[in-house]
Amino acid sequence: MQRSPKPSKSAITLEDIRAAHERIRGLAIETPLKPAYSLSQRLGLPVHLKLETTQPTGAFKIRGAANAVLCLPREVRQRGVITMSSGNHGQALAYVAASLGIPCVICVSEQVPETKIEGIRRRGAEVLVSGPDQNSATRRAHQLAAQRGLTYISPFDDPRVIAGQGTIALEVLQQAPQVDTLVVPVSGGGLIGGIALAARALRPEIRIYGVSQDLGPAMYESLRAGKIVEVHEEPSWADALQGGIPADNRYTFDLCRHHVDEITLLTETQIAEAMVYALVHERLVLEGGGASAIGALLKQTPALQLGEEVAIVLTGDNVDPRRLVKLTQDLEEG
Amino acid sequence: MQRSPKPSKSAITLEDIRAAHERIRGLAIETPLKPAYSLSQRLGLPVHLKLETTQPTGAFKIRGAANAVLCLPREVRQRGVITMSSGNHGQALAYVAASLGIPCVICVSEQVPETKIEGIRRRGAEVLVSGPDQNSATRRAHQLAAQRGLTYISPFDDPRVIAGQGTIALEVLQQAPQVDTLVVPVSGGGLIGGIALAARALRPEIRIYGVSQDLGPAMYESLRAGKIVEVHEEPSWADALQGGIPADNRYTFDLCRHHVDEITLLTETQIAEAMVYALVHERLVLEGGGASAIGALLKQTPALQLGEEVAIVLTGDNVDPRRLVKLTQDLEEG
Repeated sequence: MQRSPKPSKSAITLEDIRAAHERIRGLAIETPLKPAYSLSQRLGLPVHLKLETTQPTGAFKIRGAANAVLCLPREVRQRGVITMSSGNHGQALAYVAASLGIPCVICVSEQVPETKIEGIRRRGAEVLVSGPDQNSATRRAHQLAAQRGLTYISPFDDPRVIAGQGTIALEVLQQAPQVDTLVVPVSGGGLIGGIALAARALRPEIRIYGVSQDLGPAMYESLRAGKIVEVHEEPSWADALQGGIPADNRYTFDLCRHHVDEITLLTETQIAEAMVYALVHERLVLEGGGASAIGALLKQTPALQLGEEVAIVLTGDNVDPRRLVKLTQDLEEG
Repeated sequence: MQRSPKPSKSAITLEDIRAAHERIRGLAIETPLKPAYSLSQRLGLPVHLKLETTQPTGAFKIRGAANAVLCLPREVRQRGVITMSSGNHGQALAYVAASLGIPCVICVSEQVPETKIEGIRRRGAEVLVSGPDQNSATRRAHQLAAQRGLTYISPFDDPRVIAGQGTIALEVLQQAPQVDTLVVPVSGGGLIGGIALAARALRPEIRIYGVSQDLGPAMYESLRAGKIVEVHEEPSWADALQGGIPADNRYTFDLCRHHVDEITLLTETQIAEAMVYALVHERLVLEGGGASAIGALLKQTPALQLGEEVAIVLTGDNVDPRRLVKLTQDLEEG
């Protein structure tokens, strides 16, 4: 898969991303870019780790959620926000809403475990369980938004969310201006889309690699097909990367088509090995999606050249550490 | 143990610490202050985690080492630096020296394991193994400094090192200006001394609590005796907190005497439980000393009051993660 040579039609500019960076200060933090001591040794070139796990909610999603909410006119914002997400986006939106003192509703499907629901409730949001799957929960969220006057905040296909996630690239290129290659997890494309926009504007020759799970990689399959396609979901270590892309996608598909050089797919074993590598060698607790960029480097795709400097985005830590401990013992003894 | 009402005779000022903060930018980072999601729930008050593990070498020591080296006149600095430390200070000094392109020698005792020596070598420093214990390795380092024209950088009893460590307090009080209480690990006293100086200058009513291991807590015993005393060293989970205080101490003993409200001691079990709590509930890999402030909160000393806001310093991650995984399984099953 080669990226399309055509320029993106996206309306999001570098200035939007810079404005987002100013706007979200105080809710999201500037995360450290830490030298990857062990990975750098192993690959023989400098690897930097963008530690989004150090955000207040443990994942990068707070950047986009904060920017989207803060962009709302004051009277609209005060009425409250709503979304469909049992994961990092839901937690981020709940945190942002609680910090700003506005109502927040999170719709989740009946498949979401009670522990996750409790986690969102503790952050102060109202949780509504409705429908057997994510699609029905999403529909319910849109209905409720209309009924209660809440604003629906998309997990990824929203220019304000994309601009928020893109602030990661501003930071990386200030922290390590000489970086040649970025490796970024891909789910709905909001993260890599925003990062690609900012990074290419600042450094046109930079290489942007994506990484996804090989079980139902929605953006990868859509890019191959040249249009949004449905994928089959199966349980994966990289649950944060799962989920379909709605057919009415307006921004992220085009962004990925024009800016992403290549997407690498990881097997479940490779994702598990990346999580264990992160713990044992870089001393980091990462969820499957959060460790996926490490998995790409361990798999040696993208192929890196001597002297190349790489930054990888470690997106989140939303994993049960007891499961990670068990996995580590299994893999290390296996 | 109550702190002495007399003002400190230390020559280090808030301005020195502010200057250090400017000076070390580019070598040390401004680390995140992350809300402690689980600990805050458990204690019923806001707890913030100062993540010094995100420094390039995984520990706060880089702040003091960077400031000390950068304070040297250019021609003195170019000749190189030397110290005695197999742990975080040695790694930090090696990293700083490598970044600045100057020679660095680390003296260690014969008891230091080969893996630690290899770790320092990989950071580009020369490692000299000499003598059966830390005292003899320290003497060797001072001899060599004179012979080769190197500058000896003390792990803690040096105003430039203390000012460097104190930059943590500047950051915390900017990140969370309303913090009432700081909990800080205590070994030789450079960290808590610098933090106390800066924090009290900015916020005189702030409470400063120390925490040490109960096996040979050098500063605690010295404060109790009113003078520097020798302690017996035994293997501890908190190896970074161990080591004696040389009898010619000039700065840190006085600083602790005048600024530290109280020092809590932890048993080995309490330190181990704190490490496991950090992993399982806050998703952080911490060495024993690094987790000790969590241990103090779990033990409920200092006694905290409703509404009080606390920041704790998580100093380093220099632990074998495999040992931590094993410990987690042992404690969780036990």
